Amino acid sequence: MSNGEVRLAGGIGARLSEFRTRYEAAQALGLKLDLTRGKPSPEQLNLSDAMLTMPGLGSGVTNSGVDTRNYGEPDGLVELRAIFAEIYGMPVENLLALSNGSLRLMHDVLVFAYLYGVPGSPLPWGREEIIRFICPVPGYDRHFAICEALGIEMIPVAMHDDGPDLAVIRDLVANDATIKGMWLVPTHSNPSGAITSPDIARALVEMPCAAPDFRIFWDDAYGVHHLVEGGPEPLPILAIAEQAGKPDRPLFFTSTSKITFAGSGVGFIGASDNNLLWLRRHLGVQSISPDKTNHLRHALFLNDPAGVREHMRRHREILVPKFKQVDEVLHRHLDDYPGVAHWNLPAGGYFISLNVVPGTAKRVVQLAGEAGVALTPAGATFPYGTDPDDSNIRIAPSMPSVADLAQAAEVLALSVLLAAAEQAVAA
Amino acid sequence: MSNGEVRLAGGIGARLSEFRTRYEAAQALGLKLDLTRGKPSPEQLNLSDAMLTMPGLGSGVTNSGVDTRNYGEPDGLVELRAIFAEIYGMPVENLLALSNGSLRLMHDVLVFAYLYGVPGSPLPWGREEIIRFICPVPGYDRHFAICEALGIEMIPVAMHDDGPDLAVIRDLVANDATIKGMWLVPTHSNPSGAITSPDIARALVEMPCAAPDFRIFWDDAYGVHHLVEGGPEPLPILAIAEQAGKPDRPLFFTSTSKITFAGSGVGFIGASDNNLLWLRRHLGVQSISPDKTNHLRHALFLNDPAGVREHMRRHREILVPKFKQVDEVLHRHLDDYPGVAHWNLPAGGYFISLNVVPGTAKRVVQLAGEAGVALTPAGATFPYGTDPDDSNIRIAPSMPSVADLAQAAEVLALSVLLAAAEQAVAA
Repeated sequence: MSNGEVRLAGGIGARLSEFRTRYEAAQALGLKLDLTRGKPSPEQLNLSDAMLTMPGLGSGVTNSGVDTRNYGEPDGLVELRAIFAEIYGMPVENLLALSNGSLRLMHDVLVFAYLYGVPGSPLPWGREEIIRFICPVPGYDRHFAICEALGIEMIPVAMHDDGPDLAVIRDLVANDATIKGMWLVPTHSNPSGAITSPDIARALVEMPCAAPDFRIFWDDAYGVHHLVEGGPEPLPILAIAEQAGKPDRPLFFTSTSKITFAGSGVGFIGASDNNLLWLRRHLGVQSISPDKTNHLRHALFLNDPAGVREHMRRHREILVPKFKQVDEVLHRHLDDYPGVAHWNLPAGGYFISLNVVPGTAKRVVQLAGEAGVALTPAGATFPYGTDPDDSNIRIAPSMPSVADLAQAAEVLALSVLLAAAEQAVAA
Repeated sequence: MSNGEVRLAGGIGARLSEFRTRYEAAQALGLKLDLTRGKPSPEQLNLSDAMLTMPGLGSGVTNSGVDTRNYGEPDGLVELRAIFAEIYGMPVENLLALSNGSLRLMHDVLVFAYLYGVPGSPLPWGREEIIRFICPVPGYDRHFAICEALGIEMIPVAMHDDGPDLAVIRDLVANDATIKGMWLVPTHSNPSGAITSPDIARALVEMPCAAPDFRIFWDDAYGVHHLVEGGPEPLPILAIAEQAGKPDRPLFFTSTSKITFAGSGVGFIGASDNNLLWLRRHLGVQSISPDKTNHLRHALFLNDPAGVREHMRRHREILVPKFKQVDEVLHRHLDDYPGVAHWNLPAGGYFISLNVVPGTAKRVVQLAGEAGVALTPAGATFPYGTDPDDSNIRIAPSMPSVADLAQAAEVLALSVLLAAAEQAVAA
């Protein structure tokens, strides 16, 4: 903790009883609000309700003659792949449309690497004594859970506004062959909202790695999920890697989970020809073919890249007031106490990443919970659920109404202040 | 080969040139027919076309208040689970509705066992020096492919009409702790059509096993897929195992792949409370929730167990003439040559299992292929693709029309005769 912060904490301690009174008044409201997970709201889901009657009677067979109702087409329906291949800047041949959601795909690809190795692996990853992954932090708890389940050691590296800390990563991977890969949410990162720059993306695919089979799990979950007009185009990572002479390094993932229906969407994998040869071998043992009627439903509903962008504009209209509400309430309550918290108003994605006085995040989550506002456990955005500074809290404003968010954000702000004051007094 | 078969083969050799002439005449027709895979025909798929507009506008939320369009309900939609729990005789709490198809579920559960062990495992299965599985033969090639990918040694055991060879299995599992499990398709087995009897089912869940964590992968893929009226009720395997004091031994799988749409169906896992605790832990790392709008679509369309049975009656009406056609043509061409082939007319499922003169199955498949009739590679129904007798051929009559099946079965019969005669002459 810097001297400045200590001074602040001392100053704020004098207000402990005031903050406690205000917190207890909020607690007395008996709220029951949930800011834990990045779930779309019913209003957002309604945007896709036309899909509930799709593909439509007599429409099980595509114009190109594929019967989506039967087995076949293990790469997924080409009409849907074409839409997302254009958006993400890759050849349609290199993008597979598969199951509902991309978490399963990331999990399964990492399991395949663990069991069988990837192209270029000296051994299956699971046969190595130790394997490690670089995890930009704060990051996505479900990425970390996969590594933890498989016993992959996680190395946290700071996520900056323009991407993960390149100098640190370069140094790590150049000298440590146990580092087999890294996670990255390149666009509107979960939860910080960071946008990886083209320069950093290029450097990540170019950098020398001690492991000959290093892979970037490029989870572009929020590639089209902008909260501002004219958000960035997704980086064409396969092309960037190809140009860098490292075509096999990135494994691209995305899904429509937060475009259409969460859980009833479509997950995609993009990869080099070489990686796809490997991947198809293992996918073919696991499954006969993906749910192509759902692919067709999506292709009919979204139609083309412009259709996706227009649809995402409608999501934006619903989401922006929610993010602004939280931001405004936090400012109103916390601006008088500089240093007690800082947060982002992201340009896209699903989260606000709030940093509170180090050592108080767990207490803030506890206090908010006891006042009826459920928050993601403090530390969830770090490997093993442990934030070394006990400072980061992930806020998911998408699900509650704007009115509920005003109340929830106020409880949160009062919890932040009370925890800071408690700490200052105890110090 | 028995003496009787040798005598026959000698007798048939005299007809080599006649068979060759007949085969070449069939070859000249330039057919292009496919009997390789158990795919439903378009007529069967049409039976479920009402699902193409389901769940319907404004119907994304169930009566019980679950928004199927959002994350949640990782066990699957209870309305659908209730229908299949009743059919398969288990508590709804013990049946999960998950992804599209059961192959993926069987694969993933075996991978979880390999990576983490199951309840009662001394070690993750993959950490043992050797692990083995019992594989009833002829059996399902995709089961065997999963074992082969994971390096699980397969022990073939004969499948009889009432189930797998119990005496052999008992002896194997009692003394060999490396045998961790077995595959079984209990109803209308793929491909022989065998129906495991209640007595054998009970004996399999009761038998002493050297491995403390032995599991039966109970793949009841064809539990309601009868080709006769009044087919058997599916065995309530979880209840049988519970009564035997071995509740954790069976892992139940089924799907609607051949009830509604192949590839766009729903897969189910049934298991004891203890197994489910284990399973949910690993499923929860892999996926947030299954495709519940597809669950709802199925629940609305199938409605109840009676709805499923009535729907399967419609499938039966389409399938029975196809199976009868193949059976009739084979009889017409082969009955004059006793011992040259035997096959079943199954009471359900998707296959006819044809046994030809030992040593000629590969040649039969080759001859049929050269006359435009694609068959599953000989040996596919055995572990590692190797039929030690080179005798078994799996025929899938569901996809072609009855008229096409007449031609295909004739080519097949002529190929059987020609191969038998060739062998007799060469001997």
